[in-house]
Amino acid sequence: MLPSKRGAALPASPIRKLVPFAEQAKAKGIKVYHLNIGQPDIKTPQIMLEAVKHNHLQILEYTHSAGNASYRKKLAAFYTQQNIPLTQEEIIITTGGSEAIIFAFMACLDIGDEVIVPEPFYANYNSFALLAGVTIIPVTSVIENGFALPPIEKFEEKINAKTKAIVLCNPNNPTGYVYTPQELSSIKNLVLKYNLFLFSDEAYREFCYEGKAKSCLELEGIEDRVVVMDTISKRYSACGVRIGAFISRNKAVVQAALKIAQARLSPPGYGQIAGEAALDLPDNFFDDIKNEYQLRRDFLVKRLLSIPDVFCTAPAGAFYIIAKLPLKDADHFCQWMLEHFEYQKSTVMLAPASGFYSNPATQGKNEVRLAYVLNRNDLEMAMHCFEKGLEAYKLIVH
Amino acid sequence: MLPSKRGAALPASPIRKLVPFAEQAKAKGIKVYHLNIGQPDIKTPQIMLEAVKHNHLQILEYTHSAGNASYRKKLAAFYTQQNIPLTQEEIIITTGGSEAIIFAFMACLDIGDEVIVPEPFYANYNSFALLAGVTIIPVTSVIENGFALPPIEKFEEKINAKTKAIVLCNPNNPTGYVYTPQELSSIKNLVLKYNLFLFSDEAYREFCYEGKAKSCLELEGIEDRVVVMDTISKRYSACGVRIGAFISRNKAVVQAALKIAQARLSPPGYGQIAGEAALDLPDNFFDDIKNEYQLRRDFLVKRLLSIPDVFCTAPAGAFYIIAKLPLKDADHFCQWMLEHFEYQKSTVMLAPASGFYSNPATQGKNEVRLAYVLNRNDLEMAMHCFEKGLEAYKLIVH
Repeated sequence: MLPSKRGAALPASPIRKLVPFAEQAKAKGIKVYHLNIGQPDIKTPQIMLEAVKHNHLQILEYTHSAGNASYRKKLAAFYTQQNIPLTQEEIIITTGGSEAIIFAFMACLDIGDEVIVPEPFYANYNSFALLAGVTIIPVTSVIENGFALPPIEKFEEKINAKTKAIVLCNPNNPTGYVYTPQELSSIKNLVLKYNLFLFSDEAYREFCYEGKAKSCLELEGIEDRVVVMDTISKRYSACGVRIGAFISRNKAVVQAALKIAQARLSPPGYGQIAGEAALDLPDNFFDDIKNEYQLRRDFLVKRLLSIPDVFCTAPAGAFYIIAKLPLKDADHFCQWMLEHFEYQKSTVMLAPASGFYSNPATQGKNEVRLAYVLNRNDLEMAMHCFEKGLEAYKLIVH
Repeated sequence: MLPSKRGAALPASPIRKLVPFAEQAKAKGIKVYHLNIGQPDIKTPQIMLEAVKHNHLQILEYTHSAGNASYRKKLAAFYTQQNIPLTQEEIIITTGGSEAIIFAFMACLDIGDEVIVPEPFYANYNSFALLAGVTIIPVTSVIENGFALPPIEKFEEKINAKTKAIVLCNPNNPTGYVYTPQELSSIKNLVLKYNLFLFSDEAYREFCYEGKAKSCLELEGIEDRVVVMDTISKRYSACGVRIGAFISRNKAVVQAALKIAQARLSPPGYGQIAGEAALDLPDNFFDDIKNEYQLRRDFLVKRLLSIPDVFCTAPAGAFYIIAKLPLKDADHFCQWMLEHFEYQKSTVMLAPASGFYSNPATQGKNEVRLAYVLNRNDLEMAMHCFEKGLEAYKLIVH
């Protein structure tokens, strides 16, 4: 018996597909520096770990399908304090940001609908769209201007009767680009003109090294069109607890999402305890972390540009950089680095960028995504190893 | 902006839709006995709670998308010990049994496909089918024979080119029926004859008061057609940790499900710690719990049958009973019990059975589902209150 067509068609994750080769390298005793995945090395705040350790639950019961009321209430206050006024009724706690994306696709889009997404984009949107029967229509951004929002005419060219939404990831994964207020304003006008939803993935909102990323919840006049997908994964270095949030001021949309939430019963209980505890952290909790990521970014950009024929720009947000390499097939290079290369018993795992484009066979073939989630010492070692690998690869591939 | 058609069409949960009325009753100081939801009152095993409390994680990292290898390995051994030989490659840890159902629908079925399900069935199958673009074709079972498997000809009548799978829930939620080896064998023949998948929801496998429920993984000759959806929710009274499993011996199907699993990154980390710890419980751990549920069942059946014109049979498994009541609109009755009735400052919340049928407007209108998840003292009080409510309701509704 064969799986479904959609099951077979699901793309392998560009971030995870080379894992078997990394495992083989490790089995040979080679240290693998992981720049492929956005798994921060920053410790999860102690207050979150302790809250879970000191819980008094005797029965691990279902929670409310929208998440514990106490958590939603504090989360609404957290946003409100940041000048994003929200009530707990506008928030559904989800199983990671991933589930918030699925809820948005399912609650707002029907089978056959189209969504426009600037590419390169977070690869898993492809999978969620395929599962939801929705088609992603890309508008290509380019490395030369740091992956700024493509001209708004490029979006308009793609809009037709099937177009139902625009998806933004801001700050952007995989490019690190932070959309300007002017860019967001032009997206807002588009949304109004063509009667669209705006899905905004704000997983990296606090990871902003030059100024502040504006939330799409701050855009006036399109309150009933905006759905924000949030997560505690990156902000608190707590990817594994799987807690995110679906946020909208559109009551009917929240109601539809809540019915999906009820079908899957409830979000993870322990994760909600950790998430709620995080809201007791002081306001300046993120300052040191942001500073650390900024130093890593500055180092990584400088180091990449010091390698002959490697190009990148300094991303203003998130913790990813896309770099253009002097080669033709980054998928092959990334696999080769794991399979055949080592330098001082080490190698580097990168995410080939092709998987972040709508057509991996032809796009992003000379680009890789690097996640700067290692401490600066490891990052330095990793980049040294990367440079040596690139040199060696040039000699064997013509 | 309106939600999607599917978002608007999603049914409200028959188990949760009356929650606002229960909340209003509680606000008036009325004690509500919850017989509506399968949330056990049994304590979660201490070994699970302690494992979470004593974890040494400093970074709450993503786990493997299929779940921690150590957990899968032990879970495979757990099944193998019960004469269901499995390897860890045949198991994907999911976010509750709910996600295992979604994975099965998405990995094996395409938009427009049909699945046949004996009704009444677990109401959330309706939602998952709607989200997956799949149509549920019901075959009706009846209360008179305790909701035994309908005659196999009734299934054959519904099979056409679009039919891709049969869904069983065994032991059954909401009926408590346990399918006999003969019934499972006839389903197996059907699956072979018409080239179908068999999805088996075995959330209540250990809840079996007369003999043993046979797993569909034990059916010989259809190994590549069976997908089992499992969960730790009921077995260990741990609904809130959201840990389940997608199990199949069909490599291509597991591969497709794994790609869905990768898209949503990983199952909850803390829940996996609890789930893995549960596998260290002694073999006889469930004996006392089963005994307790059996006593509750025996009491509840006897008590229901002692009420004039109420009918039910003794279910052999799970912890639900469907009862036929002497009234025309159980939805109205259940809401009325919360809104307008009290007896000694108490009332009872039940799940109207209509929502467990494919056509809630016409089916199950005189049936309710009761979950015997309260201790016997509370159960006794609840049934007394229920009887009084039924008497009072008869007087006001003509």
